[in-house]
Amino acid sequence: MNRVLMTGAAGYVGHRLARRLAGDGIAVTALLRPGSDRSRLAKVPGLTVREHDGDLDALVAILADAKPEAVFHLAGKYVREHARADVAGLMRDNILFGVELLEAMRAAGVNRLVHAATYFQHMDGSAYRPLNLYAATKQAFEDMLSYYVAVHGFSATTLVLYDVYGGGDWRRRLIPAILAALRSGEAMPIPGDDPALDLVYVDDVVEAFMVAASLLIENPDQVAGHRFAVAPGRRCTLSEILAAFERRAGKPVPIKKGAWPAPARTLTVPWQGPPVPGWQPQISLDEGIRRLLAEA
Amino acid sequence: MNRVLMTGAAGYVGHRLARRLAGDGIAVTALLRPGSDRSRLAKVPGLTVREHDGDLDALVAILADAKPEAVFHLAGKYVREHARADVAGLMRDNILFGVELLEAMRAAGVNRLVHAATYFQHMDGSAYRPLNLYAATKQAFEDMLSYYVAVHGFSATTLVLYDVYGGGDWRRRLIPAILAALRSGEAMPIPGDDPALDLVYVDDVVEAFMVAASLLIENPDQVAGHRFAVAPGRRCTLSEILAAFERRAGKPVPIKKGAWPAPARTLTVPWQGPPVPGWQPQISLDEGIRRLLAEA
Repeated sequence: MNRVLMTGAAGYVGHRLARRLAGDGIAVTALLRPGSDRSRLAKVPGLTVREHDGDLDALVAILADAKPEAVFHLAGKYVREHARADVAGLMRDNILFGVELLEAMRAAGVNRLVHAATYFQHMDGSAYRPLNLYAATKQAFEDMLSYYVAVHGFSATTLVLYDVYGGGDWRRRLIPAILAALRSGEAMPIPGDDPALDLVYVDDVVEAFMVAASLLIENPDQVAGHRFAVAPGRRCTLSEILAAFERRAGKPVPIKKGAWPAPARTLTVPWQGPPVPGWQPQISLDEGIRRLLAEA
Repeated sequence: MNRVLMTGAAGYVGHRLARRLAGDGIAVTALLRPGSDRSRLAKVPGLTVREHDGDLDALVAILADAKPEAVFHLAGKYVREHARADVAGLMRDNILFGVELLEAMRAAGVNRLVHAATYFQHMDGSAYRPLNLYAATKQAFEDMLSYYVAVHGFSATTLVLYDVYGGGDWRRRLIPAILAALRSGEAMPIPGDDPALDLVYVDDVVEAFMVAASLLIENPDQVAGHRFAVAPGRRCTLSEILAAFERRAGKPVPIKKGAWPAPARTLTVPWQGPPVPGWQPQISLDEGIRRLLAEA
């Protein structure tokens, strides 16, 4: 793997993948929308940034110019519970933009893709039952991709991501909230019950992308046309996670139990897909928390 | 069934369905885009036309105002082999518009939908393998619909349409081409081989929509969440079809065999889904051709 193109490089998983690729000496072209926050990409050496403003002809030229051996597609808009005003943006960012990318790849003769799906597509562990509109747009993109696979010989691998956590996470999520509570001493609101989480450390997730792309180039029969779970070894309960933080930090995490409303729908049974061949998560919850506190 | 809303009323199947609904005394609101050709709807008595220009709040108001017991969603953009310039329009018309409709239904408390899918989603009779980008957008819409079914209690039925033909068809398709060749005496180009077609007369298709919507209102367990094939009793070869026309018209159809290039991909094995409960095609090829010639 010498040259790749990626979308979503300004996102949490994306910027870590970009850093890893560049660190491995791979030439990375990051396709960003105008206005994407590039501050975290400044530290990635040798990254080429190209902007896509929706002009499909220009996108074809970018693909033809970059000539990537593989494309990582991680861009997407996430909303847990959408409002009416989110609909058009979810459709544009998660479906239309992806299809434009595929169309440009086709025109430029680039046909290897590794992309990020979500375990939210699999409520109750089912083959497909979306937890939210975001998850439905992810499934819709996969169906659009099927056309390029069936008709244009694309070689594509889908990685189903679970709950990704890691150092330097700026997203409004549970783990950053625990960190903030430890730091500030202010009690964090948590649900009244003890929910289970499917945490995977970001470095493990990045490794899954690296393994999948390498296989797609060198051993496509193993991965092309398949979906793989980038899942944790096991689920953890919130109380286990809090206890692990407390052991590492040497002090209690201040909490306000019952002050966080339980979400309307949760993944009681996570999807049980096969892992990427040769990959399994290496970073235990304890080790993940150690790295995360070290980065913080 | 007293009040319905429909999309695609300006299309071929749609305008026949609108006519049937109005003829049965059902109040029909037709949701059209600005610029849709309304000429064929002028003859439909009592039809209410409302325009949707992409404003989702206005669409919610239209749904709330019409209070339909069921929505027929037939609108769509069709391109057999898309060009790069078609991509955005296919996505907008076949996915985004449909999701806006679903979102407006949800907001207005309307939750019954019957919509048109295509047998092109099932290349080689498979569960899903799209023949073209159009078919992929249809599948993507079904994925989006699954969200409204799973999370918002929608009651939806999918009718998988095959090759619909009938009188007064203005679309560039085989049957209108045969009619034109009979009328003008100019030889029509046909493929060198003898392809099979899955023809269903438009009145049978309209009946399938009527049956499905009635069941969805009165006996939802039989149809909600299901996909049904609006398929012919049997496939016909092109030579059979030409022979049937020649018998009815009493003269040969002038043809130029081999002058029409065989398409890159055809449906060698059509999808074998269950029919709408209680429905089966009533109009034989001979009877269909009789009606069609009578209308012409």
